[in-house]
Amino acid sequence: MAKLTQLIDNEVFQAYATYATVVLLKMMMMSLITAYFRMTTKAFANPEDAASFGKGEAAKKYLRIDPDVERVRRNHLNDLENIVPFLGIGLLYALSSPELSTALLHFRIFAGSRIFHTFAYLIPLPQPSRGLSWMTGYVVTISMAYKVLKTALHL
Amino acid sequence: MAKLTQLIDNEVFQAYATYATVVLLKMMMMSLITAYFRMTTKAFANPEDAASFGKGEAAKKYLRIDPDVERVRRNHLNDLENIVPFLGIGLLYALSSPELSTALLHFRIFAGSRIFHTFAYLIPLPQPSRGLSWMTGYVVTISMAYKVLKTALHL
Amino acid sequence: MAKLTQLIDNEVFQAYATYATVVLLKMMMMSLITAYFRMTTKAFANPEDAASFGKGEAAKKYLRIDPDVERVRRNHLNDLENIVPFLGIGLLYALSSPELSTALLHFRIFAGSRIFHTFAYLIPLPQPSRGLSWMTGYVVTISMAYKVLKTALHL
Repeated sequence: MAKLTQLIDNEVFQAYATYATVVLLKMMMMSLITAYFRMTTKAFANPEDAASFGKGEAAKKYLRIDPDVERVRRNHLNDLENIVPFLGIGLLYALSSPELSTALLHFRIFAGSRIFHTFAYLIPLPQPSRGLSWMTGYVVTISMAYKVLKTALHL
Repeated sequence: MAKLTQLIDNEVFQAYATYATVVLLKMMMMSLITAYFRMTTKAFANPEDAASFGKGEAAKKYLRIDPDVERVRRNHLNDLENIVPFLGIGLLYALSSPELSTALLHFRIFAGSRIFHTFAYLIPLPQPSRGLSWMTGYVVTISMAYKVLKTALHL
Repeated sequence: MAKLTQLIDNEVFQAYATYATVVLLKMMMMSLITAYFRMTTKAFANPEDAASFGKGEAAKKYLRIDPDVERVRRNHLNDLENIVPFLGIGLLYALSSPELSTALLHFRIFAGSRIFHTFAYLIPLPQPSRGLSWMTGYVVTISMAYKVLKTALHL
């Protein structure tokens, strides 16, 4: 049990735990935003969901694709595609004994880039705002991957 | 080596390992269900897949979208969106020294909610069955995130 | 701090760290391939992206679905569906004290199967090339899940 406590007592690991949780909560928020847009625009993917808003023929017209809903869904999928690598590589990076300040720099820039990316996607801001925020998070993840492979390479 | 053994010997960590594996296996099963529906309804996304069922023009008619296949795929994507946060936050939660009974309560409710969610999606059950099962898993994950941030906050 | 160093000094864990990073980098590469195809075929999902290539009506014609882009996106989603279980189950497997040689066998076959799967999807190779490479990675993940549940089962 002592070992577990020591893992979470390590400052780099605490920083990872904090920022990983923050970006996952941000990603989870996309589900609520999708639900909000589906309800306000009445655009559903499943007949049983549309049925809450009308019966029979009336329900069918709510089975449709709405551009705002699709935008939120693309944002959510982009989160998955980028936050999953951060979770995996970031965990291994946190275990590879980086300097606390360097680790914090990586985690903060990544979290900041994903939060900015969400605003850039949903407002939407003109390009290349979204492209650059995506690339920032991408480069941070590559930088952590380089440290992991330098520390732990065992092919 | 001793340290690794001690990590997996911790009861809370064992519980996490068990339930994380169970929900991941459940999610992996969605691939088999998709394959089953694609083959029985003959609805494929790739020309090279349809080619196994007919040549030339005959193959083209199998390149189509089937509502049952799309339902399984939406269920699979919903799993990804919800099980990824559980994996990440649940791991950090398991390392934050929760009571075993509290941890088991979280893991069991989450796994149960995702299994029920799958039945609610695929049968399908009338709403709000699916909505409530989704929300149950969502709230469990938020509760674990709260414990992680309370234990390890390091911004 | 010593404990963290010891975790990453464990050879099985190093092997996991290496192969998890490799498959995540491979998955991240799909984003670049998608961007490349979107730009060369001029097929965008967002009006603000198409706006870089033309104004007003000219931009609208770039808001379209291209079969090559969709193929890369299906490949990317398939990566997510299969690499997420590998990350989670593989981490727990690495902590369940497997033999180094057995662990390396699992990790190498999984990484190889996903790299081959990408070539089979994007060239594309005739079936069952892609199907078999997918199934190989799937079976490896199930085998690791079996070891995890045998070592750590705590329901």
